[in-house]
Amino acid sequence: MAAGQGLLLGIDIGGTKTHIALGRADGELLQEAHLEAWTSGSAERDLETIAGCARGVLDAARVDARDVEAVGVSAPGPLDPVAGVVRDAPNLPGWHEVPIRARLERALGRPVRLENDANAAALAEWRFGAGRGSTAFAFLTMSTGVGAGLVLDGRLYRGARYGAGEIGHVPVVPDGRACACGLRGCLEAYTGGAALAARIREDVGAGVKTALTDLVGGDLARISAHVWVEALRAGDAYAGRLREEWLDRLAQGIAIVVLGLDTDCVALGTIVARNTDLFLGPLRARVYERIWPRLRDTRIVAGELGERLPAYAGLCTALLEPLGASRSPET
Amino acid sequence: MAAGQGLLLGIDIGGTKTHIALGRADGELLQEAHLEAWTSGSAERDLETIAGCARGVLDAARVDARDVEAVGVSAPGPLDPVAGVVRDAPNLPGWHEVPIRARLERALGRPVRLENDANAAALAEWRFGAGRGSTAFAFLTMSTGVGAGLVLDGRLYRGARYGAGEIGHVPVVPDGRACACGLRGCLEAYTGGAALAARIREDVGAGVKTALTDLVGGDLARISAHVWVEALRAGDAYAGRLREEWLDRLAQGIAIVVLGLDTDCVALGTIVARNTDLFLGPLRARVYERIWPRLRDTRIVAGELGERLPAYAGLCTALLEPLGASRSPET
Repeated sequence: MAAGQGLLLGIDIGGTKTHIALGRADGELLQEAHLEAWTSGSAERDLETIAGCARGVLDAARVDARDVEAVGVSAPGPLDPVAGVVRDAPNLPGWHEVPIRARLERALGRPVRLENDANAAALAEWRFGAGRGSTAFAFLTMSTGVGAGLVLDGRLYRGARYGAGEIGHVPVVPDGRACACGLRGCLEAYTGGAALAARIREDVGAGVKTALTDLVGGDLARISAHVWVEALRAGDAYAGRLREEWLDRLAQGIAIVVLGLDTDCVALGTIVARNTDLFLGPLRARVYERIWPRLRDTRIVAGELGERLPAYAGLCTALLEPLGASRSPET
Repeated sequence: MAAGQGLLLGIDIGGTKTHIALGRADGELLQEAHLEAWTSGSAERDLETIAGCARGVLDAARVDARDVEAVGVSAPGPLDPVAGVVRDAPNLPGWHEVPIRARLERALGRPVRLENDANAAALAEWRFGAGRGSTAFAFLTMSTGVGAGLVLDGRLYRGARYGAGEIGHVPVVPDGRACACGLRGCLEAYTGGAALAARIREDVGAGVKTALTDLVGGDLARISAHVWVEALRAGDAYAGRLREEWLDRLAQGIAIVVLGLDTDCVALGTIVARNTDLFLGPLRARVYERIWPRLRDTRIVAGELGERLPAYAGLCTALLEPLGASRSPET
């Protein structure tokens, strides 16, 4: 563990919101701030905004930056946590090859750790949320895309190129639907929010009758996974048919994780966590159909942190050991 | 590491053969023995046979058992490496709930480590074979069944119930072929030797014309993956059609491993390792079609140890740390 009971600063960077939290390793949150609609188109300016807001959080808490043990930055990938560089962030305009660690270490004068948001969220749910006590934990972010963070044997598992957990792009249907990533039959092509919205637009364009069209006032560009959930709640038959396939493919993806990694807990975020009544029971039943009885004590649950997830994602990143020397063989 | 440069005894238990090897951590093999057609129907007697043969190996090498640091036993699963018990071994008649570690520790007077054969084989290929230097390695045993061992960040990854690596049973085809395991659409149902033989018998029974029928002299019970390979080499059209599907589904399974775990090396044993000319090139091409360009530096290779695999599997198991205290969180 990189830090004891000292102060930690967590920064969770997202396309629409950025969260900054001052807290401790035990999960106590002392001060928080949120930036909304905050991107400028220039990574350099965005980093100044973040650093300024971070200093504001410290000032508000009457904390000297020198008392902060480490700063954790959770950011969209792909990124290089060793070099401390965000390679590319499609949702952050102007962010390409951004040396975020060096910039923030200079601005804040404290050591900065960088981790991708799926990994940081998994660490947060494992340490403070749905994955507490798990020895083989997967957290699936179910948003516009589908990704996973893996905490195995009490350690974040990152993969050979820091790209582990691309569960959204494992092929679940041979020669299946084209995915925005360029591959075919990806889990995300059936269960990601963006793919689902595209699918609905396609179907409506082809003449399918659904309450979704009215819910967006005929403006198909406004169709989203959220509107789909609205239509589901309104009892729309088409939305219900989509739900069947969505549940089946997602259950298949989770079964792949459970069988391949022998997980004892798989937690799901975002759309599943916000609509457990619609999704969680049937999803669990469909996963259990696809795994052996002896694996059915695997908990299939919703993420528990909800609105607190970004704050904890940043703090958990601050708790990571510095990378570099950590890959020496032990077995 | 549990042992330095001392002597290690490796025991690899299989249904048709059991291998016993005396060697060192650097891979030097000092003495070996093989038991063939060795099972008696009684686990108790089988363990006496193994212990007797192990003592014979030590005697032949003029080594005192007290100079052996540890004994490693690689055995078919499911097993419990902490309790040192083989739960069930379908290919070993009479083996149910066999406390193999306690029995062999009593018989040999040395500490015994137990690991399942897929994990032990993966450790062997990672330490001495195709996976040398890999930081995220998967070894796929391609035999009657399909299983994987995972060596991640330099450590054997076992899973929450010591059942990780059941890649043979991840669902690759929604509502696909029934698998002998009870699930549907499993990778093994398309690529395992036993499933393949069953499939061929089905097709021949349904009237398909193939050279396979002649190769087994009309005795369908003799159909096996080996005979399929013979038919492939003889240019049989039916065998060739099966190969297309076999390669496609296996490539899909490997793509799932690469995308999910960000492996830098996936090695394949048995049928692929023995017939690299028939399988490896097209398999690699089909995996690369199913993963992103940036992951294509993942090596897709054949296992390198061949006949030496069992000896090294046993020795690598002897090198494992004793289990129990190894699961404390570190991150």
